Amino acid sequence: MPQWDLYVVITTKLGGGRPTLELVRGALAGGATAIQLREKELPARELVELGRAIRELTRDAGATFIVNDRLDIALAVEADGLHIGQEDLPAPVARKLLGPEKILGVSAGTTDEARQAEVDGADYLGVGSIFATGSKGDAGSPIGLEGLRAIRAAVKIPIVGIGGINPDNAAGVIAAGADGVSVISAVIGAADVAAAARRLREVVTRARGK
Amino acid sequence: MPQWDLYVVITTKLGGGRPTLELVRGALAGGATAIQLREKELPARELVELGRAIRELTRDAGATFIVNDRLDIALAVEADGLHIGQEDLPAPVARKLLGPEKILGVSAGTTDEARQAEVDGADYLGVGSIFATGSKGDAGSPIGLEGLRAIRAAVKIPIVGIGGINPDNAAGVIAAGADGVSVISAVIGAADVAAAARRLREVVTRARGK
Repeated sequence: MPQWDLYVVITTKLGGGRPTLELVRGALAGGATAIQLREKELPARELVELGRAIRELTRDAGATFIVNDRLDIALAVEADGLHIGQEDLPAPVARKLLGPEKILGVSAGTTDEARQAEVDGADYLGVGSIFATGSKGDAGSPIGLEGLRAIRAAVKIPIVGIGGINPDNAAGVIAAGADGVSVISAVIGAADVAAAARRLREVVTRARGK
Repeated sequence: MPQWDLYVVITTKLGGGRPTLELVRGALAGGATAIQLREKELPARELVELGRAIRELTRDAGATFIVNDRLDIALAVEADGLHIGQEDLPAPVARKLLGPEKILGVSAGTTDEARQAEVDGADYLGVGSIFATGSKGDAGSPIGLEGLRAIRAAVKIPIVGIGGINPDNAAGVIAAGADGVSVISAVIGAADVAAAARRLREVVTRARGK
C-alpha cells in the first residue's frame, strides 16, 4: 500500500537551479513517502532518462513513484502510477490503459470532480488547492479546509492535500481528513531540501497519530 | 498495409487559422493516404478529443492515422500507430509499449539512425529533411536526395520523405527511393487544402508508376 504522508512533487525549474536527482535524493533523505515527476516542457527522451533514475531512487527508498500527466512515460519507466489533472487524459481512458495494478491519482477541486474520479477508477485524489500557492499557475482559487472536508465526506479513497501546504498548516490539513500532504516549493524550493522534507514529515506523522 | 503516398502532417498553428478538422477533411478529400497529428502544445484532454475525431475521419476515408510523439494519445484514440523523433521515446520502448500490431514510425536523418530504427522495430522511416523547410524548427540541415538514396540503400522498411517537399520536387523524392512524401505546409498551409493535396498525390502516383 502506498503511503501518502509526504508526497513531494518534483518540477526541476522550481528547485532553485539544482539538478532533478539532487532534489529527489534530498526529498527521500528527509522522509518523502512518495515522489511525483511533474515536468511539462521536457522531451520524452529526457523524461524517460529522468524517470528511470527516479524509479531506482524511489525503489531503494521504499517510496512510491508517480508520473504526472504522461501515461506513456509512466509505463516506459515502470512508475507505480500516474497522476492526472482535469486537462489531462480522461480518467476512464487512463484507467483502462494503465491496467488494474498501476496507481491512478486524479486532481479534484470540487465534490463533483472527486466523486467522478472515484467512479472513474482513481486510487487516490489530489485535492486542492487548499491554500494559495505560487507553484502552479493553473491551480484555481483555494478551496480551504472546508472544501477539503466536503470532499473527504464525499469519497472513500485516500486524499492528499495540495496547494500552499507548509509545516505551519499541515496538521490542519490532516485534521480535516487528508491522508497526506503534497508539496512542491515547500520542499524543493527550500535551501535544505532534506531538512524541509523531514520537518513536514514529522508534522504529518504527529498529526496522523502514528 | 498502410499506403504512404501522401502523408499529411497536421499541426494546427501552421494551418492558417483554420480548425484542425477542417484541415484533416481537406487533406483527405484531396487524397491523403495517411494523416499524422503533430501537436506539441495541447493538453492531453484536447489531444484525445481531436484524435478521436481524426480517427473517425481517417477510418471513413480508408487512410492511416498516426500520432506524433504521444504514445499515450495514440493508444487512447486507437490510432494506427505512433511516429517518434530522436528526442521522443526511445524506439525499443515505444515498440514494446505499442505491442506488435501498431505501426511505429521513426524519424531518421542519417544511415546510422535509419539502421538503428529498423533494428529497434520501426515499421517505416520518416527521412529528412530532404530539402530546406520552415515548418519544423528542429529539422536540421537538409540531407538532399543523395542522403535519401544512402538511407534507402541502408534499410528495407518503407521510407517517407520529409521536409520542403512540393509538387515540383516530389517526383524526384520518389525516384530517389521514397515510398511516399510527408508534408505539412505544402498542404495545410495552402489556400485550398484539398486542391494542394490532390496535386501532390497525382505527382506521387505518377512517379510511383501506379
